[in-house]
Amino acid sequence: MMKAAVLFGIDDLRVIEKEIPKIKDVNDILIKVRACAICGSDLNIIKSPWAGAPPFGDYIPGHEYAGEVAEVGRNVTEFKKGDRVVTQVHKGCMCCDNCIKGQYTSCLNYGDTGKGHRTYGITVNGGFAEYAVNHSTTLYKLPDNIDFPAATIVTTAGTALFAMDLAGSFITGEKIIVFGPGPIGLMLVQLLKAYGASNVILIGTRDSRLELGKKLGADFTIMYKGKKLIENLLELNNGNMFDLVFDCAGAEQAVNVGLSILKKNGKLILVGFYKEKITLDLNKLAMDSISIIGVRGEGNRSCGRIIELAGQNKIDLSSIITHEFNLNDINHAMSVYKKRFQDAIKVVIRI
Amino acid sequence: MMKAAVLFGIDDLRVIEKEIPKIKDVNDILIKVRACAICGSDLNIIKSPWAGAPPFGDYIPGHEYAGEVAEVGRNVTEFKKGDRVVTQVHKGCMCCDNCIKGQYTSCLNYGDTGKGHRTYGITVNGGFAEYAVNHSTTLYKLPDNIDFPAATIVTTAGTALFAMDLAGSFITGEKIIVFGPGPIGLMLVQLLKAYGASNVILIGTRDSRLELGKKLGADFTIMYKGKKLIENLLELNNGNMFDLVFDCAGAEQAVNVGLSILKKNGKLILVGFYKEKITLDLNKLAMDSISIIGVRGEGNRSCGRIIELAGQNKIDLSSIITHEFNLNDINHAMSVYKKRFQDAIKVVIRI
Amino acid sequence: MMKAAVLFGIDDLRVIEKEIPKIKDVNDILIKVRACAICGSDLNIIKSPWAGAPPFGDYIPGHEYAGEVAEVGRNVTEFKKGDRVVTQVHKGCMCCDNCIKGQYTSCLNYGDTGKGHRTYGITVNGGFAEYAVNHSTTLYKLPDNIDFPAATIVTTAGTALFAMDLAGSFITGEKIIVFGPGPIGLMLVQLLKAYGASNVILIGTRDSRLELGKKLGADFTIMYKGKKLIENLLELNNGNMFDLVFDCAGAEQAVNVGLSILKKNGKLILVGFYKEKITLDLNKLAMDSISIIGVRGEGNRSCGRIIELAGQNKIDLSSIITHEFNLNDINHAMSVYKKRFQDAIKVVIRI
Amino acid sequence: MMKAAVLFGIDDLRVIEKEIPKIKDVNDILIKVRACAICGSDLNIIKSPWAGAPPFGDYIPGHEYAGEVAEVGRNVTEFKKGDRVVTQVHKGCMCCDNCIKGQYTSCLNYGDTGKGHRTYGITVNGGFAEYAVNHSTTLYKLPDNIDFPAATIVTTAGTALFAMDLAGSFITGEKIIVFGPGPIGLMLVQLLKAYGASNVILIGTRDSRLELGKKLGADFTIMYKGKKLIENLLELNNGNMFDLVFDCAGAEQAVNVGLSILKKNGKLILVGFYKEKITLDLNKLAMDSISIIGVRGEGNRSCGRIIELAGQNKIDLSSIITHEFNLNDINHAMSVYKKRFQDAIKVVIRI
Repeated sequence: MMKAAVLFGIDDLRVIEKEIPKIKDVNDILIKVRACAICGSDLNIIKSPWAGAPPFGDYIPGHEYAGEVAEVGRNVTEFKKGDRVVTQVHKGCMCCDNCIKGQYTSCLNYGDTGKGHRTYGITVNGGFAEYAVNHSTTLYKLPDNIDFPAATIVTTAGTALFAMDLAGSFITGEKIIVFGPGPIGLMLVQLLKAYGASNVILIGTRDSRLELGKKLGADFTIMYKGKKLIENLLELNNGNMFDLVFDCAGAEQAVNVGLSILKKNGKLILVGFYKEKITLDLNKLAMDSISIIGVRGEGNRSCGRIIELAGQNKIDLSSIITHEFNLNDINHAMSVYKKRFQDAIKVVIRI
Repeated sequence: MMKAAVLFGIDDLRVIEKEIPKIKDVNDILIKVRACAICGSDLNIIKSPWAGAPPFGDYIPGHEYAGEVAEVGRNVTEFKKGDRVVTQVHKGCMCCDNCIKGQYTSCLNYGDTGKGHRTYGITVNGGFAEYAVNHSTTLYKLPDNIDFPAATIVTTAGTALFAMDLAGSFITGEKIIVFGPGPIGLMLVQLLKAYGASNVILIGTRDSRLELGKKLGADFTIMYKGKKLIENLLELNNGNMFDLVFDCAGAEQAVNVGLSILKKNGKLILVGFYKEKITLDLNKLAMDSISIIGVRGEGNRSCGRIIELAGQNKIDLSSIITHEFNLNDINHAMSVYKKRFQDAIKVVIRI
Repeated sequence: MMKAAVLFGIDDLRVIEKEIPKIKDVNDILIKVRACAICGSDLNIIKSPWAGAPPFGDYIPGHEYAGEVAEVGRNVTEFKKGDRVVTQVHKGCMCCDNCIKGQYTSCLNYGDTGKGHRTYGITVNGGFAEYAVNHSTTLYKLPDNIDFPAATIVTTAGTALFAMDLAGSFITGEKIIVFGPGPIGLMLVQLLKAYGASNVILIGTRDSRLELGKKLGADFTIMYKGKKLIENLLELNNGNMFDLVFDCAGAEQAVNVGLSILKKNGKLILVGFYKEKITLDLNKLAMDSISIIGVRGEGNRSCGRIIELAGQNKIDLSSIITHEFNLNDINHAMSVYKKRFQDAIKVVIRI
Repeated sequence: MMKAAVLFGIDDLRVIEKEIPKIKDVNDILIKVRACAICGSDLNIIKSPWAGAPPFGDYIPGHEYAGEVAEVGRNVTEFKKGDRVVTQVHKGCMCCDNCIKGQYTSCLNYGDTGKGHRTYGITVNGGFAEYAVNHSTTLYKLPDNIDFPAATIVTTAGTALFAMDLAGSFITGEKIIVFGPGPIGLMLVQLLKAYGASNVILIGTRDSRLELGKKLGADFTIMYKGKKLIENLLELNNGNMFDLVFDCAGAEQAVNVGLSILKKNGKLILVGFYKEKITLDLNKLAMDSISIIGVRGEGNRSCGRIIELAGQNKIDLSSIITHEFNLNDINHAMSVYKKRFQDAIKVVIRI
């Protein structure tokens, strides 16, 4: 038996005793979870689980976790008991056209567990528990200098890195705007500077986060008040338009300001979700050969690259962790995250 | 002296005698123009020339023209007097970052003739005249089986082909929607089928154009009434979502219907211009890894490939030409084009 | 029980009664085989099976086959009993880095059936039998206008198409040399012309094959005698260097002539195998930014695209089939293929 | 008048008084040269100038130089008098197919100065002089923290970076071999580590250079003795094959060892020149989907990115400079470089 946070109904997450999950697939691995971070989507999930989620009373959320290998399936040769590992969220069905082309975060059988698709913590059980079972392809080994809480940031950082992949740009020497100093935006700032972006301007609404962004490498930060934003941006970029704009805020003004300030062939990359429809100037796209690129998940095995960069101290995963709690205090932890209490950014559950 | 249609003021295009233009650059070529097509943008241009256009009284519009080489600049070795040639609209400055990367239709010195940028017929004089001067890199030789009027369609078709390039997809075997059976949309249908698309559905508002689209290879055509469009599209695609949607109509509903019916990793390609802002569901982009790609001009030397395909009879350039007029009748020709008189699609001026 | 050609030892292929194979995986499909082509590699295989092949007495070769679905595994929704289907050779493990990136023909667990890798007819049983079992991702539905013998050419053509993918070039309007009018070379000629190559020159050593190549679309054919080859090639290309050279012959002179006649940034694509080491001028690569690209198998789901092209009559799969035999006559059929008796090109076993 | 090193005949380089060159093109810039490095190819050039070089008595070699803007052509807006700048070697004709596609180091009019192609110091006069004239597109501004001698390394480093571009790989997390600790190889080691390669093994024949390579970031270095090299490499890579092999040595064994140790889909990148033909196992390419990629020059405006990386202290350009001399001592400097006197790596002429 193990301790696990199980969703019993809307907003009803309880830490109970539950049977330790079993390896079913020959490629599955049982993990002794040691830490699992709270993601913004967890707050939505406990109010309204995604289509295909496990039933109330059985469902263990949590999709950003790390731990030790406790047992390996018959076919697994890449990992052995005791290995320190971190997970990624998405496992493709590996049968559909997108998966076969390498696009496992865009699996056409999304949510269809029968076809082999998994989003751990979302459509199958996840990491707010002492044990979890993951397919071997969703695990990466951790170097010694990344501890378990830091490792829970790998998926967040991996999403930021995949967004950079999809931008299809050199990054080095480029002038880039990042809207939204949330966990993804802050990791993105670090990554862009690690790869040599020449000017990274971070835009947000909270002083504390902008200060952190500056510390993590942003060349400039701007408090987003909506007026003179474009003038300020141009001024901080020597009057030049920008190569790339990343919207990690999911905000209409971010999209519109971003589009208006991109140079020809620039790209607007969407890493956040939008609650409402957005009204925008599509004509700018055709006039100036601009693309808007939607990013879903941590594709291209970006998590593996994040671990490399963190292992080489090129980025600092723990920099955005502000709070740690025990599994028993998960509801309090969720509340801290939600209310951004004490400037909470990333809240990690130690298990 | 030569005959030329010169813009003397807003909506004041007159055919007059004018001096034959001279070769200035060592790479310039003087062309005896034989045909020049009217493009939709010409109607706007004569009402409101683009920034950087030649002054009233000097300005010769027309950017889709073909003819014979009359004289070549000192450095030109690729062409000789008498060669049958067609022009492309855009010449990059070849000095800016975009041009040096190969993106001459997105030149960062757009409109700056001093820097070497040219859009023939738009920022410098064009082809509604007996003679025109073009830089050698904007010319392509014509095979014998493409006559001059057909050749005027090369830029239109080249824009459609560049849109396919930017889609970055195999095309062969794909399921594709084309909104807007204008000249670009109709050429796109031909090109998509020439490259092996498995299902091309053309959506428009005029029976005559949809019929032509069917004749040019569209697997299905749909009269766009706005209701049950999504159901109809799915039905005509065996219940499947689509790989690509091209909007050649510049319409809000096209964008929204298109986005909603794209499969994960699908792409919406914008080849038309938008008169107003569009309200759309950007969240779909992030959820389903979808991109919206703006297309400007005939990049990647697509005109050369169009000539090859037409020379091999894989596409028929003349299929969308409905009317021909003499240069003297250019104002009448513009009016026929504008009012879509007699189902006019593409109207060509013979010179 | 079924009839099957089983390899009992070196060069000892016998048609015997054998148990019908069973579906093991939930994604497996039992196929009633109707035709299976002989590939050049089959001649080597029966003399020396590849590492990881089934044991003598059990091993059924044959990797180019088509038939009807007889039974589907529990998870299969894409196919149903009675569907007419064709197979592809390679199934990746879908667990290794290459497979996850979409490169299933370059699986890092090649030959490891435990990890889920399969090369049908090579490392697991294949199609010289009345029944075969294939993973659902290795099957494609056939349109009515492709009969079973024609369908056996899909993998051959798919390999040629994947080679074109890896060339990463527009093909349309390009000048291209194909060495070796074997099955792959002949399909390649058709494909290059279907996609609009402007000049395709086929080089070989047998008149009958060159004649067929001409019929299938080659602009020129050259009898390869080794002298003045370069002069001839330049003459047939208006004195210009070439964009691409495909070596489907696996010959030293092909590689050297090809390299010497490629223009800057040109590519030499290797689709054949080489029996011996080759001596070549690597300096040309660094001087002229040239790449040599090795091609393995039918990647990028090229077989699906081949079926589309054949279904649309853009290529003719049956054009290279010269002989058909019954399964009982398989040893005679192999001999006909091997000795190129009666100008044999592709020999198909009807089952 | 200015002081310049002029080639008067084979191996006859003399420092003389010569007229200061004049700006001819409206985009040209006159540079007061402050430092110019000796490149390995300079040693060959003074024995045997390339086709198209200026005549003896006029020819000033030197293609790696930096200095201050002394005067700008009429059209130049990007630079002004006094700007500190560094040059790149290649200027494309910007008229040929390759240049228009963005591949200016593979210009099809290579060496044709009439068509606008330039290789400074090679086909037109270069930087071993107090003044030089360059087209504005071959200049980059220097940040304050890069001094002139360090700036002369930009083209060398840019070539290494362009080689990484052409590898088309993530670099981050990859296992990579570099053959040849010459200037390009040593810069490559720094760049690979700057971008997060996980294991970079440098192979050479001189202890001093391997030691420097280690200091510049190589994870391991190997003294190349030819025996057990493959075993050693595998051991230093935990038994794994490699993702990429760069040959900066131009050596047969490098190519063969490299090919044999690449994993499927791996790439062998050639950044050096080969004095003789190489015998190699091309079959490996087809079996394992491997490519050999030739690299010419500092494409994709890599020099701009190098300046960014150096400006951000991610790489150290001056790390490979071992000697500095005055222009008057250029022949002695060449001799030091050639004989690798005092472990000379990069020798810079201060002007």
